[in-house]
Amino acid sequence: MFDVVREDGKDVVVHAPAVAIVAIDGEGRVALVRQPRAGARRDLLELPAGILDAGEEPLGAAQRELCEETGLRGGDWRLLASFFTTPGFSDELMHVYLATGLEEGDAAPDEDEQLTVERYGPNELPRLLEIVEDAKTLVGLLLYLRL
Amino acid sequence: MFDVVREDGKDVVVHAPAVAIVAIDGEGRVALVRQPRAGARRDLLELPAGILDAGEEPLGAAQRELCEETGLRGGDWRLLASFFTTPGFSDELMHVYLATGLEEGDAAPDEDEQLTVERYGPNELPRLLEIVEDAKTLVGLLLYLRL
Repeated sequence: MFDVVREDGKDVVVHAPAVAIVAIDGEGRVALVRQPRAGARRDLLELPAGILDAGEEPLGAAQRELCEETGLRGGDWRLLASFFTTPGFSDELMHVYLATGLEEGDAAPDEDEQLTVERYGPNELPRLLEIVEDAKTLVGLLLYLRL
Repeated sequence: MFDVVREDGKDVVVHAPAVAIVAIDGEGRVALVRQPRAGARRDLLELPAGILDAGEEPLGAAQRELCEETGLRGGDWRLLASFFTTPGFSDELMHVYLATGLEEGDAAPDEDEQLTVERYGPNELPRLLEIVEDAKTLVGLLLYLRL
């Protein structure tokens, strides 16, 4: 899933670029996924997200991951932010998109993913900020609330 | 700096908990640090931050790191958020504090740190959000702007 290389006397985790999506459905609700996470050693509530396949562009990866995890597809897309998740020890670059005007479809998660999709209305976003424990999800929701 | 362990068939980076500080000086400016970052392979502009020493509590670590990196000390402290930086592959837990009413003092960065401190006024925060490329810094500034 990742390599560790030695650069300038420091170990660096070399990781594929990643994408996450603030996906707003036709009723103005944001779609989040709940799944077991290795780093947290328990379930976390997060934006739909994933890593780029070889040769894939960030936007294409984001559209593929959103559809796989939630079934949501189509719609209008814009980049909200790109940032390093942990620049002190990893080169992982995260691109967070906003997707609106999405159409409903069937999800097709990877077989090794155990995720459930939850949707939260606009009035629930302030409370979500209190319970979310994932960096990219906080960045995405906070930027969405500023639009 | 970190270990990699195998858990449930996945490699996980085991990392010390970390702290970052939204530090507001007597003129209402936020103090950021610019330094070379292994993951980005160039300089990044970030909140003052660091990892907990053995046996250290998050708040104590945050006060120590802020003083070492910027010279700012004392003041009033509150926790803004705690979150996983990359829950898909690392257990790093980040605590972001807000510190206000700080007193000026002398910085004492570690000898291996090459950092410069920059301060930005309230009017510059929206522009900062466009140029910052670090997850914890985006979370901290965005939460500060909601207060």
